[in-house]
Amino acid sequence: MSAPLRISLDAMGGDAGPAMVIGGANRSLTRHPLSQYMLFGDEKALVPELNKYPDLAKKSQIIHTDISVEMGEKPSQALRRGKRKSSMWMAIDAVKKGQADVCISAGNTGALMAMAKICLRTVANVDRPAIAALWPTVRRDSIVLDVGANVGANAEQLVDYAVMGSAMATALFSKERPRIGLLNVGVEEIKGLDDIKNAAHLIKTLDLPFDYHGFVEGDDLGQGLVDVIVTEGFSGNIALKTAEGTARQVGTYIKDAMTRTWITKIGSLIAAGGFQALKRKMDPRGMNGGVFLGLNGLVIKSHGGTDAKGFASAIDLGYDMASNKLVERLSQDIEKFHRSLSNEDQEQ
Amino acid sequence: MSAPLRISLDAMGGDAGPAMVIGGANRSLTRHPLSQYMLFGDEKALVPELNKYPDLAKKSQIIHTDISVEMGEKPSQALRRGKRKSSMWMAIDAVKKGQADVCISAGNTGALMAMAKICLRTVANVDRPAIAALWPTVRRDSIVLDVGANVGANAEQLVDYAVMGSAMATALFSKERPRIGLLNVGVEEIKGLDDIKNAAHLIKTLDLPFDYHGFVEGDDLGQGLVDVIVTEGFSGNIALKTAEGTARQVGTYIKDAMTRTWITKIGSLIAAGGFQALKRKMDPRGMNGGVFLGLNGLVIKSHGGTDAKGFASAIDLGYDMASNKLVERLSQDIEKFHRSLSNEDQEQ
Repeated sequence: MSAPLRISLDAMGGDAGPAMVIGGANRSLTRHPLSQYMLFGDEKALVPELNKYPDLAKKSQIIHTDISVEMGEKPSQALRRGKRKSSMWMAIDAVKKGQADVCISAGNTGALMAMAKICLRTVANVDRPAIAALWPTVRRDSIVLDVGANVGANAEQLVDYAVMGSAMATALFSKERPRIGLLNVGVEEIKGLDDIKNAAHLIKTLDLPFDYHGFVEGDDLGQGLVDVIVTEGFSGNIALKTAEGTARQVGTYIKDAMTRTWITKIGSLIAAGGFQALKRKMDPRGMNGGVFLGLNGLVIKSHGGTDAKGFASAIDLGYDMASNKLVERLSQDIEKFHRSLSNEDQEQ
Repeated sequence: MSAPLRISLDAMGGDAGPAMVIGGANRSLTRHPLSQYMLFGDEKALVPELNKYPDLAKKSQIIHTDISVEMGEKPSQALRRGKRKSSMWMAIDAVKKGQADVCISAGNTGALMAMAKICLRTVANVDRPAIAALWPTVRRDSIVLDVGANVGANAEQLVDYAVMGSAMATALFSKERPRIGLLNVGVEEIKGLDDIKNAAHLIKTLDLPFDYHGFVEGDDLGQGLVDVIVTEGFSGNIALKTAEGTARQVGTYIKDAMTRTWITKIGSLIAAGGFQALKRKMDPRGMNGGVFLGLNGLVIKSHGGTDAKGFASAIDLGYDMASNKLVERLSQDIEKFHRSLSNEDQEQ
């Protein structure tokens, strides 16, 4: 089933720019043929690319701007130069104006978050948006947040993350009560930071729309024990990048091991089907896109260095989030959580 | 070259107990034939195991105690029950008394750290010991610390870790000026926590016995860009366990991919030599042992779930640290750092 969603794209974002973005949109269109696209960027660069895909061209509208945010620009600088007039800002603003259901950008993360916060604002009761990542596991995928929007989080913010991650899991995995874990350095109750312990206490006390699993550790991340793993943005970012780095490192080991001798080369040629399956499984492009949670509108951050295939995954993720009404559900759940939190305070 | 070192072993620590510890000692002895061993634990359990290895028996002395620390015991409880009289305490105490050059235990980490701190005390100027782990990379190994002794660290403590990690790198890699990186969530100067930024500032200002590389991110950990990566214990523990978990996860993927069809099975049989090399490369037993740094004596923590092969790696690591006079060098470097720190303060 395909819903007629309107997708807003920052066509200038990412290392590979418009060719990658438009190629990605074209791939995603084949999977969601009713989608429509708004492409923000320099029309001189966009028109020739769009002309390569007649089907996509019929579903797309180019909105011209000369200004684009650079990959290395500081958020403050990007805002000064690009507020209201850069392709990134305008792509986000289309969501705010109700012209689009979701915005996807492969541009500079810091600038995208800064612009999204100013343009869309956080939903009521949330001080800080979080970035949620899909995490491949040996079972089904998990959601991990925050993977780098903010450094540090207090107990209440961690529970906000849990509620937001739970709404995302419901949207993505169609699970009414997702299973949530808190990332910690030990599974025993005594360990870890006070904020995490207090978050666990809050979760156990209040009636929240998910099931609480308990603490999980770094080595549980890939095991798929839970649907959502909650942590503050510093350790979440370290964990995400460590996992990506380790997967790449093991990839190097595999390659070295299989090219050691002519016998291993022949063996691995024969087992080529297996290696291809492994490669597909480990291809980061199949799972691309950080979801900005807690804003009044949907913004997805694609990896800057991805290609059309990877960008299409990020669009697909945005499509799934938008068609499942993530923002509405998340806002309701957050509202309910903060209401029960203030009831709790009054009773005490 | 083999030095006649005296090695103190908590023979009751670890999931597999005395058989694993004594089997590990025997393996390590073949590599370091001049070593001597003190085995602390229940002689009824130790004697039959030691009798299996006549060469080791000649080099070993059993010191009996009935009391051993349980794997799941809380540190406070372990101290109450086991101070002065448990195999863990007595093994550490042998280092304090100068009867042994290094202590190795596969017991409960929290209890081992608590006992080591009380028995050996931290070297002058260090408030907190750290746990350093060896980290396999695509180049040579790196050292990562703190991987879980303490949650959080201020700037001065992070620089202590850098100085201690540097001393360990000098001992282990024979590098006069190791290269050090600070783990952060971005390589730009503006990002990350104040403590990390202040640590970077201190490092750049003072004359320290290492070369400073700058910030590194989670995905750099496996790349071997630097000899030592410094972080506080929460994110360090998350990173270490995430990497272990990801390696195991990819191992599962490889197995699944190679047993998909009879063709992949045949191919992988032919390439068996490559898979064995890969398995050796990814075997966590080859790199077992967390080094407790910052104490007046050497204590190595082995993984609790390891076997004799893994325990032997931990003994070897302890051997390398002790024969290279790690504690002496570390204490001198720390002293120098704190002297220059207080000079700096006076000048301001």
